[in-house]
Amino acid sequence: MAHIYVYSPSGAVRDRAAFRRGIQRLQAMGHEVEVDPDALATFERFAGDDATRLAAIGRAAASGADVALTTRGGYGITRLLPDLPYKALARAVGKGTRLVGFSDFTALQLALLAKTGAPTWAGPSLCEGFGAADASDAADDHGGKATSGPDEIMLACFDDMASGVGEGTGWRLPKADRELLKARRDGHLAHDATLWGGNLAMVMSMLGTPWWPEVEGGVLFLEDVGEHPYRVERMLLQLLQAGVLARQKAIVLGQFTEYRLGPQDKGFNLTKVVDGLRARLKKVPVLTGLPFGHVPTKVLLPVGRPVDLLVEEGDAMLLWGHMH
Amino acid sequence: MAHIYVYSPSGAVRDRAAFRRGIQRLQAMGHEVEVDPDALATFERFAGDDATRLAAIGRAAASGADVALTTRGGYGITRLLPDLPYKALARAVGKGTRLVGFSDFTALQLALLAKTGAPTWAGPSLCEGFGAADASDAADDHGGKATSGPDEIMLACFDDMASGVGEGTGWRLPKADRELLKARRDGHLAHDATLWGGNLAMVMSMLGTPWWPEVEGGVLFLEDVGEHPYRVERMLLQLLQAGVLARQKAIVLGQFTEYRLGPQDKGFNLTKVVDGLRARLKKVPVLTGLPFGHVPTKVLLPVGRPVDLLVEEGDAMLLWGHMH
Repeated sequence: MAHIYVYSPSGAVRDRAAFRRGIQRLQAMGHEVEVDPDALATFERFAGDDATRLAAIGRAAASGADVALTTRGGYGITRLLPDLPYKALARAVGKGTRLVGFSDFTALQLALLAKTGAPTWAGPSLCEGFGAADASDAADDHGGKATSGPDEIMLACFDDMASGVGEGTGWRLPKADRELLKARRDGHLAHDATLWGGNLAMVMSMLGTPWWPEVEGGVLFLEDVGEHPYRVERMLLQLLQAGVLARQKAIVLGQFTEYRLGPQDKGFNLTKVVDGLRARLKKVPVLTGLPFGHVPTKVLLPVGRPVDLLVEEGDAMLLWGHMH
Repeated sequence: MAHIYVYSPSGAVRDRAAFRRGIQRLQAMGHEVEVDPDALATFERFAGDDATRLAAIGRAAASGADVALTTRGGYGITRLLPDLPYKALARAVGKGTRLVGFSDFTALQLALLAKTGAPTWAGPSLCEGFGAADASDAADDHGGKATSGPDEIMLACFDDMASGVGEGTGWRLPKADRELLKARRDGHLAHDATLWGGNLAMVMSMLGTPWWPEVEGGVLFLEDVGEHPYRVERMLLQLLQAGVLARQKAIVLGQFTEYRLGPQDKGFNLTKVVDGLRARLKKVPVLTGLPFGHVPTKVLLPVGRPVDLLVEEGDAMLLWGHMH
């Protein structure tokens, strides 16, 4: 199967049990796992100081692995933006190394896209994606949080990515989206459009910097965790007001989770945010329900690759690879 | 004394007792208080829908008052940015109306500065600034949160602003700042430099939009509430990476409050963030300790006005008005 290089570009790994389980799962799936020497380094809240994490990213680029997988997100990559080994990363991608991660990793993905055009993959990280405990782990751990283990859909998408056979992904649109899209006779929302995006807060943190990818006519996907709808709206409005959204073929919203509405909200919620965005954006379709975000069921998405976006009988399909 | 127009451009007023106390305090100070008809309007989490709040801002601009004071912050002004009555607001400022507020109000202040150059005041809002309960209020309220009432320093600064006699403000620098600044023989850090800034998250929410004020050689002041140091750092890094910080004469940090460090932080804190910023920024001094933010002791600061920034024997002084 695949040679997978595991490294830590962002936050320190605190859940070592999840780390070990993740490696064992990848091995049990038949993959060869190589662990970066500083994968478990710690410095303050980071997986080693800035120089340590930069070196780890350099080793991941030089690994010759099929997949370079982050252990986790957190915070730390924006500190490294001026010094990332962009050329080495782009060369690695050119030679077939797939860089996979999400959350904080969005910053590296967008900066690499801006500087080199090299595509990467938005997908799971080792600990949260492959290290999720199942019932037998919990019994062993005496107190580990019992979940049902890694998500089956994520695993299937990861295998498709790792073996290079994936050619797209699809999801059932929520009812409100289906109603809206009925009015569009042509279900082909985007053709050969650059797919980009990731974590909304991280996307925002690149705006105005030299690492912002100026994507025109793209498909922008966004997700976030722990951000109240008013903050999600504020971020989306900024993207709108900066002219970014109107220049895209479509906006695709993934999962927005782990926020809490308060008594002050009085009916203001994420649905209102999406409705408001649609009212302001008008010409650019906003789809929701993409299975991507800080949730177990995550598809893998090729950031920086041309995609087609189709809507057919209430299903959305993002297609890449050899299909168009 | 002053004619004060009270209006609600952002979040709905929920604490009506604080609202009433604030008005009574201003009246007791001798001011004439005019309350906007929609000051207590509510729509979802907002003080009325967007059209209602826009109309209130228009009435504040047309009021002819000496001071137009917001009832509170919250969230809502970024929604209005494309439609704010910029010319009417600038005309009102030209005729002597001082627009005062903070937090969400930062968005209006920076947009007005960008579009018209008109100065405004960063300062208290009615409810949190003047509505703070004291011991006698709590006794009356049977359960109201007893504090010591409005802050004396804020009240003195507000009176200076309202009567137009204020010419500057000063504060004792923290020890670390004093050590750093010893190396600078010349304590005159900025001369005739535009003072700008406010709430850090709101400043960030303007970046890349048509309402971003392109201030060169200014003094940028920043505060925030409820933002973890890693998020404060991420925002400061973005301003640095966007080239904004290096173009200023000085950065002045106010109060950063109501965040909670977690077990994952392991020594990463706000001091580390400030140290890291200083190490990266090098040529531009970063002062801390400005008495401004989501705290009772707040000075009033003229956003968009030229200021001098001086450091003398461990004190910092921001001077405006007729003194230079």
